[in-house]
Amino acid sequence: MIKVSIPQGIEVNALDRELQEAHGRLKNKTGAGKEFTGWVTLPGDYDRDEFERIQNAARKIRGESDVLVVIGIGGSYLGPRAVIELIKSSFYNSLPRNNPEIYYVGNNLSGDYIKNIISIIGDRDFSVNVISKSGTTTEPAVAFRIFRRLLVGKYGADGAAGRIYATTDKARGTLKTLSDAMGYEAFAVPDDIGGRFSALSAVGLLPIATAGIDIQELMGGAAEMMDLCSHSATPENPAFAYAAARSLLYRGGNKIEVLAYWDPDFMFMAEWWKQLYGESEGKGGKGLYPASVSFTADLHSMGQYLQDGERVLIETMLIAGNCSHSGITVNNDPEDSDGLNFLAGKTVDEINTAALQGTFLAHTDGKLPVLTVDAGGKTARDIGRLIYFFEYACGLSGYMLEVNPFDQPGVEAYKKNMFALLGKPGYEAEGGMLRARL
Amino acid sequence: MIKVSIPQGIEVNALDRELQEAHGRLKNKTGAGKEFTGWVTLPGDYDRDEFERIQNAARKIRGESDVLVVIGIGGSYLGPRAVIELIKSSFYNSLPRNNPEIYYVGNNLSGDYIKNIISIIGDRDFSVNVISKSGTTTEPAVAFRIFRRLLVGKYGADGAAGRIYATTDKARGTLKTLSDAMGYEAFAVPDDIGGRFSALSAVGLLPIATAGIDIQELMGGAAEMMDLCSHSATPENPAFAYAAARSLLYRGGNKIEVLAYWDPDFMFMAEWWKQLYGESEGKGGKGLYPASVSFTADLHSMGQYLQDGERVLIETMLIAGNCSHSGITVNNDPEDSDGLNFLAGKTVDEINTAALQGTFLAHTDGKLPVLTVDAGGKTARDIGRLIYFFEYACGLSGYMLEVNPFDQPGVEAYKKNMFALLGKPGYEAEGGMLRARL
Repeated sequence: MIKVSIPQGIEVNALDRELQEAHGRLKNKTGAGKEFTGWVTLPGDYDRDEFERIQNAARKIRGESDVLVVIGIGGSYLGPRAVIELIKSSFYNSLPRNNPEIYYVGNNLSGDYIKNIISIIGDRDFSVNVISKSGTTTEPAVAFRIFRRLLVGKYGADGAAGRIYATTDKARGTLKTLSDAMGYEAFAVPDDIGGRFSALSAVGLLPIATAGIDIQELMGGAAEMMDLCSHSATPENPAFAYAAARSLLYRGGNKIEVLAYWDPDFMFMAEWWKQLYGESEGKGGKGLYPASVSFTADLHSMGQYLQDGERVLIETMLIAGNCSHSGITVNNDPEDSDGLNFLAGKTVDEINTAALQGTFLAHTDGKLPVLTVDAGGKTARDIGRLIYFFEYACGLSGYMLEVNPFDQPGVEAYKKNMFALLGKPGYEAEGGMLRARL
Repeated sequence: MIKVSIPQGIEVNALDRELQEAHGRLKNKTGAGKEFTGWVTLPGDYDRDEFERIQNAARKIRGESDVLVVIGIGGSYLGPRAVIELIKSSFYNSLPRNNPEIYYVGNNLSGDYIKNIISIIGDRDFSVNVISKSGTTTEPAVAFRIFRRLLVGKYGADGAAGRIYATTDKARGTLKTLSDAMGYEAFAVPDDIGGRFSALSAVGLLPIATAGIDIQELMGGAAEMMDLCSHSATPENPAFAYAAARSLLYRGGNKIEVLAYWDPDFMFMAEWWKQLYGESEGKGGKGLYPASVSFTADLHSMGQYLQDGERVLIETMLIAGNCSHSGITVNNDPEDSDGLNFLAGKTVDEINTAALQGTFLAHTDGKLPVLTVDAGGKTARDIGRLIYFFEYACGLSGYMLEVNPFDQPGVEAYKKNMFALLGKPGYEAEGGMLRARL
């Protein structure tokens, strides 16, 4: 199970009443943004028929494609990528494996990026999972036009339709309409779950299953954490402890929360976490700024700042137990020219643990409040628990911050400007005014 | 040439006197940490003979290896990776190419990571560039033991020695001694250049040249920027403008500088920048916290926070002109089901530019001070200029902050604890005390 430690002197019990109130709002769906709290019960009430269709689709993709192209942005990009890289490896595409390579497009507007993915696919067989609630978000819609054309060119209209999997609104919208017309297999982006809370819906599950990860285990872990949050709503519960500690530290004047991880495979889990907290809490002039560091690499980079820079930050160390069993050890060197023979016979992961403990103490001595979140391991079950843990803590924390943790009004501002500058019909007047300001 | 724009109302001329003083200290080597300012004149006075040896070594590696393993941490990792991914692509290893794949080890303590790299190399031919001033920094030293053993097992002692390239102290230290004893070809980590300022020394140049990048052009760009900084020390000079603007914004109460880039290939350039500024300025309780975001991906993630979260941050948009010529365009769709036909015929990169402009205006309207740094392109010459630009601005900014921008005392704290916890001879007493605190 997940374990959380919080800095000495942080009295999470002081927030017990606030935690209970926030918990009640989540559980009873009475808080701001309540129409987007479907994720709270998802690990229990998800659609079992669709779940089986996801597993069948993953099997079909594995059988007929060398590459899966995942088209999505925001949670539709970060959720699946985070889970696949954490459980399988950030080198997933390069390692020997039985499952398709997976590439993510539609998450940026770089022509070089798209061109490179097309070049990497080459003449190999591929399928596409396009993930978009509406079907009109610019980045994924542009990418889908391009990759759909490639599929049709390669396999014909019918062949292409059999290789396109659409994760979209269950009833309406551009992509749903197109799926129905063309016969794409479709999965639902639930109406009551926003993008950053969607990793355990079809949004995340189809790519994750295609990578060969046991999604039953993933959901099982999430269900365990859901039970714990629903039945043990006390500051001893790790989600409550984490929510309370970071809330108190924010109220104490800190501005930044740095998520520190100890294996490069966690990079996209940190990106997913940044979206979850940044987009849920960063509104109304409030919120801890979520940042991340990759240790030990960044101990030789941002380490200086963390040890001795502005004291406006807190550090959350994200670890996964002593789960690494790579067996890579330091060999003895008869000449000991580098003086490392005191490490001979130790595994690299044991040294990593000592680095972690040493850093914990050094940063604490440097007046940096350090929390730890230990997932206990990095199996699918562990990561299912971890995802739900961070989600529930985010809901609690957002309500205690007195914001609506489930909307994202600020994301629209750049889009409107972009449409106007691109001459989208209906935006002509704004376009001229904006161009004058550039 | 590099262009910088700064937010309206920021009067960089107000810092003219301070800029001149900082400039004088850098130029005349009279400031704090002056013994580590060799980078200031490096693009003019670098060792031409060594430069030629680097090019020859790169040619040899390209001729006899499928993979180059680069062992280094801090600037020895981030410098070469930043340049290679930015100029060549973050998909460098997966794309068709004539040069060796490049993997970076010794920058973390994950056993899985090392195991995966070994698995990816498989039975292919490889060479190693080990980069360490002393040869005793734990992460690279551990990795070097492991990969040296692999080389010896595969090619024998002599064969291995011919495939190891050591970038290290020119006269002393563990790795230098070993290189001399074993006959490794050695290159110098200059005495007067710290890791984060070393990208244009042998530290960065050997891997960069191996990737097929024209290092003569890289140095040429840096030399142009050096000339500009030395002869045009005014707030109109981009390095001076950038240093002054961020200094003023920091003094105005901002705590975070977010570097926003518009193509995933910039990711490690942003990591390099974070080390440069974080490690140079994050001391004595001071300094802007350097963070980064990848647009447009993170507009659907951190975008909400940037638009409307705590107003304690500034944003620096790092762009590379309109240099992308991928030719990837949006195709027309007779049915226009997604309503994107207003984009038909436009390149993806044109849409990216509109997103950038729209974001610039949206964030400015959101009371977020936005700077832009435009490298003009991403050729080797452009990136040489960019590196020197950021370095010189960092020196100026650090002096104006009244810190020593060239030391990193805080990096030692975790190392001492780690050694004690690992039972390194000489640290026995501390070990017990530290363990009692865990």
